[in-house]
Amino acid sequence: MKTRAAVAFAAKQPLEIVELDLEGPKAGEVLVEIMATGICHTDAYTLDGLDSEGLFPSVLGHEGAGIVREVGPGVTSVKPGDHVIPLYTPECRQCKSCLSGKTNLCTAIRATQGKGLMPDGTSRFSYKGETIFHYMGCSTFSNFTVLPEIAVAKIREDAPFKTSCYIGCGVTTGVGAVVNTAKVQVGDNIIVFGLGGIGLNVLQGARMAGANMIVGVDINPDREEWGRRFGMTHFVNPKDVGDLVAHLVALTDGGADYTFDCTGNTTVMRQALEACHRGWGTSIIIGVAEAGKEISTRPFQLVTGRNWRGTAFGGAKGRTDVPKIVDWYMNGKIEIDPMITHVLSLEEINTGFELMHAGESIRSVVVY
Amino acid sequence: MKTRAAVAFAAKQPLEIVELDLEGPKAGEVLVEIMATGICHTDAYTLDGLDSEGLFPSVLGHEGAGIVREVGPGVTSVKPGDHVIPLYTPECRQCKSCLSGKTNLCTAIRATQGKGLMPDGTSRFSYKGETIFHYMGCSTFSNFTVLPEIAVAKIREDAPFKTSCYIGCGVTTGVGAVVNTAKVQVGDNIIVFGLGGIGLNVLQGARMAGANMIVGVDINPDREEWGRRFGMTHFVNPKDVGDLVAHLVALTDGGADYTFDCTGNTTVMRQALEACHRGWGTSIIIGVAEAGKEISTRPFQLVTGRNWRGTAFGGAKGRTDVPKIVDWYMNGKIEIDPMITHVLSLEEINTGFELMHAGESIRSVVVY
Repeated sequence: MKTRAAVAFAAKQPLEIVELDLEGPKAGEVLVEIMATGICHTDAYTLDGLDSEGLFPSVLGHEGAGIVREVGPGVTSVKPGDHVIPLYTPECRQCKSCLSGKTNLCTAIRATQGKGLMPDGTSRFSYKGETIFHYMGCSTFSNFTVLPEIAVAKIREDAPFKTSCYIGCGVTTGVGAVVNTAKVQVGDNIIVFGLGGIGLNVLQGARMAGANMIVGVDINPDREEWGRRFGMTHFVNPKDVGDLVAHLVALTDGGADYTFDCTGNTTVMRQALEACHRGWGTSIIIGVAEAGKEISTRPFQLVTGRNWRGTAFGGAKGRTDVPKIVDWYMNGKIEIDPMITHVLSLEEINTGFELMHAGESIRSVVVY
Repeated sequence: MKTRAAVAFAAKQPLEIVELDLEGPKAGEVLVEIMATGICHTDAYTLDGLDSEGLFPSVLGHEGAGIVREVGPGVTSVKPGDHVIPLYTPECRQCKSCLSGKTNLCTAIRATQGKGLMPDGTSRFSYKGETIFHYMGCSTFSNFTVLPEIAVAKIREDAPFKTSCYIGCGVTTGVGAVVNTAKVQVGDNIIVFGLGGIGLNVLQGARMAGANMIVGVDINPDREEWGRRFGMTHFVNPKDVGDLVAHLVALTDGGADYTFDCTGNTTVMRQALEACHRGWGTSIIIGVAEAGKEISTRPFQLVTGRNWRGTAFGGAKGRTDVPKIVDWYMNGKIEIDPMITHVLSLEEINTGFELMHAGESIRSVVVY
């Protein structure tokens, strides 16, 4: 079949809207009509050539929502007509990681996914006879895409695509970091570094969990209003204080129970660790750092009881947890609508990247 | 009163055995006759001038066992004749840290302890009218010492001093890191880096906890026999393998559930983190690093589910947990006797430091 898609033919070039050839689903695969997709920093990271493992030409996009249109042989968990969110972190429920119950980092299709291919080692996309790579196992910048059955979460049909697509990455990453990774409890004090699309979701995750102080840190003063809208109780602009860590430790009476880095900046990651409470504070890295950058600290910080952790996809098991987050959204426990600052057509997708780079959007969404 | 003590008059000089003046216990304090004391690397670290906060002249030693001989006003939890282990990490049961239930790092007397003084801001030790500082709140290199009531753990009277003194630091640090900090469970795979006095206790803690693979790593081949004696199932000499981390990850089928650094070497600390299993492996820093040294890694290591933590005094709440560890020793759940490689008189204490520096002892103990 044919599908309209925004193709990244090479790094550092605008996406091109073209008609691609798309092979139908093979065994264990499903064809999904993408109805909406968010534009995430990770797409830009790859498009900007910062990801050393980025592959071109490819169909980017990993934050979508759509409808199953066809299933391949052996597919039992979804059927045509089901509403789904594609999962860049699948959930096979069979591998050592899934069975451990301790992590969401399913390894079933990791090798092929990292090579831009389906689990059988081939791509479903081509353009004028040439292979186009998949991206993060999703490729939601295509109106139709093929996904492994283990990489789709079935969601309720009354959830609007335009907003629930954001649960495919940003919402789940932020809210899940609080709920699944940190397991924030009522009365905990938390600090969020970076109030972009992820940070705001950490804030509202902490609000939902009943956190006490919910401190937001950002060098952009405009983000204070955004933060307060999603549960932030205190705002700190690092430009307004001398020693940021000392300021935060004093503000939280000894340091936070949990801190979250949503900046990808390794210097901030260190500050986030050191702003944790002695004895038990845990810092969670969410942001993706530039290739080659390293985090560091004095081991004394850990020996005196601080914990350094990370999270991917908010620690969420996709098929199990994503439908729950859709419920939280539909039941009003979390908000998404105000975060969707721009709705674009596929033809306008490059504008979405520009808005993001300029810091003018929280989330731009392409609606097909 | 008078007490015989080994005094560190200055850094990088042998200890001198002299008679000190010792003031009796004030309110909330106890006088303890030290019956035996271990010589620990931390004492050497201070004596060698590596601890930037080290104070001289002082009475070092923090790994003792003895008998309460006198109590000051208001002391209710111990009485003359009680057998006790001094606690360099006290347990007041009143401060924010103690009440949190999340850490053993009691802060009640931290400020004065760090200054080599009793909680009232004065020292009980003097020599020819000049103040001699306390050390780590213990000063067990003195036959008699004065301790805050919250800094002694009452233990059973049938435990021999010569071996149970080791529970005052090394045993609790190693066994506790497994039991209290990691909370190792039956079937977990663990790796211990550095098979000295702490590492061997990590091994036997893991054995007690029912760990599956108990891997020991040391550049000294002589330590293989020592390790096997305390539960090690696999020995790896880094000199015998190419890429140590890759070797350990393969050996443990993806990495260990828990790794423990007992070397104090920041390069090894990184290897210990990276030898953890993707998704859930936790690395625990026990070793004390050189001043100014930092740990570092790629944040990707944490984002893909590895956890970096530390422990002090094995996460043990002194008054609560130390008596239990004495029970484990007396009941044969852990061994101490074979680790006490040298028994010395106070006059021979400098020999104990020499043996340690030469790697010829596991633990040297001074018996008064």
